[in-house]
Amino acid sequence: MERRLLEKLKKGEISFHEMEKTLDSGAAIELRRAAVSELTGVNFNHINNFSFDIEKVTKRNIENMIGAIQVPLGVAGPLLVKGEYADGEFYIPLATTEGALVASAHRGCSVITSCGGANVRIIDDKMTRAPVFRVKDITGAQKLIKWVKDNFQRLKVKAEDTTRFGILLSIEPFIAGRSVFLRFAYDTKDAMGMNMVTIATDAAVKIILDENDAELIALSGNMCTDKKPAAINVIFGRGKTVSADVVLSKEIIEEKLKTNPEKMVEVNYRKNLIGSARAGSLGFNAHAANIAAAIFIACGQDAAHVVEASTAITTMELVEEGLYCSVTLPSLPVGTVGGGTGIGAQQECLAILGVAGAGDPPGANSKKLAEIIAASVLAGEISLIGALAAGHLAKAHAELGR
Amino acid sequence: MERRLLEKLKKGEISFHEMEKTLDSGAAIELRRAAVSELTGVNFNHINNFSFDIEKVTKRNIENMIGAIQVPLGVAGPLLVKGEYADGEFYIPLATTEGALVASAHRGCSVITSCGGANVRIIDDKMTRAPVFRVKDITGAQKLIKWVKDNFQRLKVKAEDTTRFGILLSIEPFIAGRSVFLRFAYDTKDAMGMNMVTIATDAAVKIILDENDAELIALSGNMCTDKKPAAINVIFGRGKTVSADVVLSKEIIEEKLKTNPEKMVEVNYRKNLIGSARAGSLGFNAHAANIAAAIFIACGQDAAHVVEASTAITTMELVEEGLYCSVTLPSLPVGTVGGGTGIGAQQECLAILGVAGAGDPPGANSKKLAEIIAASVLAGEISLIGALAAGHLAKAHAELGR
Amino acid sequence: MERRLLEKLKKGEISFHEMEKTLDSGAAIELRRAAVSELTGVNFNHINNFSFDIEKVTKRNIENMIGAIQVPLGVAGPLLVKGEYADGEFYIPLATTEGALVASAHRGCSVITSCGGANVRIIDDKMTRAPVFRVKDITGAQKLIKWVKDNFQRLKVKAEDTTRFGILLSIEPFIAGRSVFLRFAYDTKDAMGMNMVTIATDAAVKIILDENDAELIALSGNMCTDKKPAAINVIFGRGKTVSADVVLSKEIIEEKLKTNPEKMVEVNYRKNLIGSARAGSLGFNAHAANIAAAIFIACGQDAAHVVEASTAITTMELVEEGLYCSVTLPSLPVGTVGGGTGIGAQQECLAILGVAGAGDPPGANSKKLAEIIAASVLAGEISLIGALAAGHLAKAHAELGR
Amino acid sequence: MERRLLEKLKKGEISFHEMEKTLDSGAAIELRRAAVSELTGVNFNHINNFSFDIEKVTKRNIENMIGAIQVPLGVAGPLLVKGEYADGEFYIPLATTEGALVASAHRGCSVITSCGGANVRIIDDKMTRAPVFRVKDITGAQKLIKWVKDNFQRLKVKAEDTTRFGILLSIEPFIAGRSVFLRFAYDTKDAMGMNMVTIATDAAVKIILDENDAELIALSGNMCTDKKPAAINVIFGRGKTVSADVVLSKEIIEEKLKTNPEKMVEVNYRKNLIGSARAGSLGFNAHAANIAAAIFIACGQDAAHVVEASTAITTMELVEEGLYCSVTLPSLPVGTVGGGTGIGAQQECLAILGVAGAGDPPGANSKKLAEIIAASVLAGEISLIGALAAGHLAKAHAELGR
Repeated sequence: MERRLLEKLKKGEISFHEMEKTLDSGAAIELRRAAVSELTGVNFNHINNFSFDIEKVTKRNIENMIGAIQVPLGVAGPLLVKGEYADGEFYIPLATTEGALVASAHRGCSVITSCGGANVRIIDDKMTRAPVFRVKDITGAQKLIKWVKDNFQRLKVKAEDTTRFGILLSIEPFIAGRSVFLRFAYDTKDAMGMNMVTIATDAAVKIILDENDAELIALSGNMCTDKKPAAINVIFGRGKTVSADVVLSKEIIEEKLKTNPEKMVEVNYRKNLIGSARAGSLGFNAHAANIAAAIFIACGQDAAHVVEASTAITTMELVEEGLYCSVTLPSLPVGTVGGGTGIGAQQECLAILGVAGAGDPPGANSKKLAEIIAASVLAGEISLIGALAAGHLAKAHAELGR
Repeated sequence: MERRLLEKLKKGEISFHEMEKTLDSGAAIELRRAAVSELTGVNFNHINNFSFDIEKVTKRNIENMIGAIQVPLGVAGPLLVKGEYADGEFYIPLATTEGALVASAHRGCSVITSCGGANVRIIDDKMTRAPVFRVKDITGAQKLIKWVKDNFQRLKVKAEDTTRFGILLSIEPFIAGRSVFLRFAYDTKDAMGMNMVTIATDAAVKIILDENDAELIALSGNMCTDKKPAAINVIFGRGKTVSADVVLSKEIIEEKLKTNPEKMVEVNYRKNLIGSARAGSLGFNAHAANIAAAIFIACGQDAAHVVEASTAITTMELVEEGLYCSVTLPSLPVGTVGGGTGIGAQQECLAILGVAGAGDPPGANSKKLAEIIAASVLAGEISLIGALAAGHLAKAHAELGR
Repeated sequence: MERRLLEKLKKGEISFHEMEKTLDSGAAIELRRAAVSELTGVNFNHINNFSFDIEKVTKRNIENMIGAIQVPLGVAGPLLVKGEYADGEFYIPLATTEGALVASAHRGCSVITSCGGANVRIIDDKMTRAPVFRVKDITGAQKLIKWVKDNFQRLKVKAEDTTRFGILLSIEPFIAGRSVFLRFAYDTKDAMGMNMVTIATDAAVKIILDENDAELIALSGNMCTDKKPAAINVIFGRGKTVSADVVLSKEIIEEKLKTNPEKMVEVNYRKNLIGSARAGSLGFNAHAANIAAAIFIACGQDAAHVVEASTAITTMELVEEGLYCSVTLPSLPVGTVGGGTGIGAQQECLAILGVAGAGDPPGANSKKLAEIIAASVLAGEISLIGALAAGHLAKAHAELGR
Repeated sequence: MERRLLEKLKKGEISFHEMEKTLDSGAAIELRRAAVSELTGVNFNHINNFSFDIEKVTKRNIENMIGAIQVPLGVAGPLLVKGEYADGEFYIPLATTEGALVASAHRGCSVITSCGGANVRIIDDKMTRAPVFRVKDITGAQKLIKWVKDNFQRLKVKAEDTTRFGILLSIEPFIAGRSVFLRFAYDTKDAMGMNMVTIATDAAVKIILDENDAELIALSGNMCTDKKPAAINVIFGRGKTVSADVVLSKEIIEEKLKTNPEKMVEVNYRKNLIGSARAGSLGFNAHAANIAAAIFIACGQDAAHVVEASTAITTMELVEEGLYCSVTLPSLPVGTVGGGTGIGAQQECLAILGVAGAGDPPGANSKKLAEIIAASVLAGEISLIGALAAGHLAKAHAELGR
């Protein structure tokens, strides 16, 4: 290790991100880690432990790398999924540090699979980016909206020129005085697509600016809406809009969940519907975010998109055959290429689900992943609602040391 | 490895979670991983790589463990923080797979530190759990509410009996017809506290049920609100309510962000305020969730709590000295003991920040962590708003291959 | 009529509001009406028809008066109410132009009364005003919050000095960077109280400004929140928080609503809960606003407060005795003194309900009015949900020519 | 008067709505009023005072009529409007009982007119009705959605068969498990259209039920969303989506509002944007509901639609020429035929604005009315923000006795 560089780093004479100028990735990582160690007095025995491809990861996934975090990985399942893309039994990889979570999901999988599996359907699929423009006044706003409508095909060609797979589906306009938001929606196939739609929209924006009296204020104007809870996504979708359901028999509920359909209906009703309504919530579920977070981290998804996943709505209804359970995720942004999907362990988890890399046809893998996630979220809901109905929540917390 | 067990596991004759009955943790992990490998045809070269203490982790953090996910870890900083608990320069550990994120945070840290550091203050601090009860009718609801008010001290004693550190601060009642929600709020010191408050509330609920004509429907009635975006948390807080701010000089903005205060004000105004308003959002920020997710994963926090963190509000205002920037996180649930905080790499990251384990006095460490996170989120906001103002977003995406 | 003045008025040489400088109220009204008539070519045969006391009305209720609007007034009932303030049968005055509304409310009253009447309880009662201040930075915000907490008694004395009846209950602080909002909550007795709390808060604010480094930006900072739908009111109340419920027998439902409890439960579930959730709504009811608007106009309430009333939550649940129905209005700002309550016809409507003027003790009348409104809203919900369950909605629209 | 009938009415042996069976409208009204008088001991000297056509009103607007409410009517203006439908100076009729409101609107009109008038543009125009269906499961939901898409033309023909003017524009599907919501959107020309779209949708629903395995649960499933605050309307519109703006000169602001552009910008920023965001509000304005309520009552609109009007967003921004002010109402449901628009005084108010009855071409009048309302709301915003900036709010409340 270069002692001189290390000293300069510690004194702040050079910055962490300048290491790669003179060092290879491995040496840069080591030097930064050494600097942090000396600056903070912490000896590292764990963050230095990793097996992924440094070159790829430092190029695509992280800057100023100093090591890796190990997140414990468990498995739940088998989970029988009856989707249009995912059809069969799946073993769900879950990376989490929260005790009881994998056990809960596992129990839910068992219940669903015993009852014949979960139906899953993707209702909508699009990734969005919404730049915000400033125009002169409201008449200018009206003009711009009309221009965009009239020139959609040209914008589409220009946007799609920047991408091999992306398809521009629509541009939805919104205004607030002289602020004009254009929500571009794309089919991004197997990519989650944020990167793709940013670049494509940037290209289309250039024509808009050339031919209109409008100023671009921000390429992302928050009507996208990315990583913030937003009704626009809840209502009109972003990423996959996907729904899963299953009918549970009374017997299985009694055997595996130690409760009954009536109690589960009441828990879901007073908690997930009435309680969320009274809390001013955009999420009408028990813990969709838990399951989504664990699969996202396992499968190299963007962990901040757990925000969108948390807006699911769960329903439980008595039917002749027992208990109808469903979960609808209006906004689930996932992909099987790009982002963290190519990193060693993450790619292995995608492979466990049979969705590593691009699908055939393009888009089939990300849709399959979305279907599996929706079914897994359903498993989590069934298990937690069951535990609450049976009065087991505190006990589970106490025992599994969560 | 036990071939017979493996076959039974593969055939589903026994379940993943039964391995520990006859095997030690290490062998159980291996057997499950082998089963998943054979069932799915995936060879694992990465998820088997981990260095943490298996016994502790399988006991506290995960069930059905098969290995670990490696999340790349970068560092941003130094970040000068001027809080009541965090006071000095910090190196921020960020675990992410999203290219450009660490670079962006790093740039934001540099800007803040150059301008004298970020003020941070914790405005409120409490963890909540809100059971939902069913009473006979609205007169019963009124009675129950009155009873709880009159018996608060008794409930407090009972709840606090279950915990060494937790303090019951208040019980806030809400009704919807014959559904009654009681939102228990606790000071949980250095623990994030979900586990603690669940157990403590469970104890208090027992007295309520004994002495009132009320039925417990669910120990968590979604007015808590945990891991769903909810106005109740945004307005009245859950976890830490924390705010950070800084005044940036015009010169630093020009030098480091290649833009000017006026442009940044306009981006923040049209994007974070107008755009979020028009989107029906509960989050008025650019990407608080990104920074929170990366620190949460690095520091062993519950990743699903990124939902709460995403509801920050960012302001940017012209002042004589340059640009006033602030971020307010109404709901930031974090801890330095419990959850994933004791796992090898995660604990090292907490140590980097000087907040591993319990603080002195109790609560000081989790507050310090919250202050650092708030300042880091501010760094992220400044950097991204700066990039948007400078028109660099698409370029950054293209170059850093996000 | 003064022709010269009229001409000047028409030419815009003097303004409508200047008439009273030289004319008495009656003449001023006539002159303005004549001017509008000549300017627009409209002959007035109706707006000139009114019987209230011009002097009082032009002093307290309206400026630039030119006449009056006649809103048709119907009656529904008797409605049996079992509240703490309203106890007995009431005839509900409803002013509306929407056909079918009174009929619907009337049917609902009949159903409730036949089933033994509606329980009503007021859960909370307060009127709020939330000024917004700008401080130097977040440390200043923390200081101001602390100062307000420490000086609450002094602020209370000062605020209450401005009013005979108002009592300052609490001041709740909120921040967003250097913006500080202080939500003052008052018991305003029989007045709806917006005027009272504005003046009282203005007085308290003066001390705050004298003794703190803070600038008042607006006496109303929208966290009040007045006449905008807002989660803060939905969750924590503004005006009266009031709930009404009743258990309907199967027989009455079949006889009067031509449907059954099961169907009504399902309509309420899929429409008022699931539908509102999916719509990102803050109102989980069928048409609380209709009933509230009609009573508000009849009883001289502020019609814009229909916004707050629209955020009710309606529940319908099967119970042994039949159908449990409830409505909870978290935010119902009403009064029996001040505003339009003293005008001729409006006061007569308040008298019909036995709530004209101040109550004994003070506050009893406005609480009684709130209870009656809640029971009436319940009647409206039962009737409309019943009509939807019976498949009668379109028919009713067609026949009653709404 | 028929004494025998009166006694039966008082004893509840017959119901209020049965009077018309044996009596003409006038006698029925009198008898009911007499009954209410005797039952409650109130002598009526005002509610019996009205001049509208009883036959028409009792047929179309009200049931169980006992009289009328007189709401004081004032006028504000002239207001210079530069819309596509409303072009010229208008005198705004405002019916209210809230002192200071007309004065405030009048001042705002004066400011706008002095500065050259308000631009207004209608961005979208549609009335919606969203029935909710129950299907077997999520696969059935997907099928139904596809069927509706494939059969849109047939549904359109069927729906439009029920109306002379209505045009079905689109059907937007939403799901939550096995609940399917179909949001029908219509151009209803000069009618507000709730009645029209209910009847038209009812007709279309019949085909859906005939040809699909779906059960209608409610013809209105709350995703319409009618008279409840809902993000779906705020984001995607219902009724007219209309925006108005104006640039105010510094001089006029100083002369008429006694403040300056900078202060108004800050009030709007901290109150209407930050304050509303922190309150979890769907309305980012000062008092749009006040102006809307007053015009609605004056012009025979449905007063409960004030809820939708309250979700406006107001912006104020410094520009070279002074202060740019805008208001955007995403959801303004108004009409000039049907509802209360044909009643004596109400029709006179519509005539004042030149919009009584159907427009030429159809729809022109309701659009013109919407433009005038938007400009009036802008006037109200400017005046109140101005008053807050000048520190005059409490003073105005005190003086005008509101």
